[in-house]
Amino acid sequence: MTNPAYDPDNIFAKILKGEIPSVKLYEDDDTLAFMDVMPQATGHLLVIPKAASRNMLDADPAVLSRLMPMVQKLAVAAKEAFDADGVSVAQFNEAAAGQTVNHLHFHIIPRHEGVPLKAHAGKMEDIEVLKANAEKIKAAL
Amino acid sequence: MTNPAYDPDNIFAKILKGEIPSVKLYEDDDTLAFMDVMPQATGHLLVIPKAASRNMLDADPAVLSRLMPMVQKLAVAAKEAFDADGVSVAQFNEAAAGQTVNHLHFHIIPRHEGVPLKAHAGKMEDIEVLKANAEKIKAAL
Repeated sequence: MTNPAYDPDNIFAKILKGEIPSVKLYEDDDTLAFMDVMPQATGHLLVIPKAASRNMLDADPAVLSRLMPMVQKLAVAAKEAFDADGVSVAQFNEAAAGQTVNHLHFHIIPRHEGVPLKAHAGKMEDIEVLKANAEKIKAAL
Repeated sequence: MTNPAYDPDNIFAKILKGEIPSVKLYEDDDTLAFMDVMPQATGHLLVIPKAASRNMLDADPAVLSRLMPMVQKLAVAAKEAFDADGVSVAQFNEAAAGQTVNHLHFHIIPRHEGVPLKAHAGKMEDIEVLKANAEKIKAAL
């Protein structure tokens, strides 16, 4: 089975090109991290490679290898920033798995005991709330 | 916040030491992949590093970097083996996030359109079913 082609006009590609704003947490030559605008829990963030791939299935393995230490650092920081009891890391490939934006991304979601996740791609969060949460994560990075 | 210590008697450590059986898919110096015995969907498998860490929070970043290309290969193989529409990749840190075995592991779950996941750590699958599914994944690797 061949993978569908990468769409260079997907939302995260537009964020990378600066055509759409995002609440950024971290950026380097390979990586961008920013707040999920429809968080499943407080502090829900996304980590993406700058390299173009639709998801993990068509990604360059070297890109994945470079990305994961940053996924880890952001997971540690997000847990600390919200004094969370745990952190969920999730990566969805294709719509059947819940993928809604076709650029490889890892979800990092701080978790607290007894607090279920809200729906994926559910309700848009207030921008000021996202910015305030981003400051907490950046302080913990 | 400090991470809890690694428990060398966790179930996956015992699988690595050969003290508990598993339905293996792939093994190299750094990595072991095997079938989840309580699958959330057909073909649900786990990829773990041989290096000891409780989860992603306390893992050696270099271990994560080496692990991810194998996570990718197994995700691609699992999707192909079951002609799936997508693949979920999930990694849980601490009980609040759903972690039930305290050795770093990535869940890889083939997904089909309209088929919801079964409960995590739910019902034990028949060993012969797991072995048959493992053969399909190994053939696609």
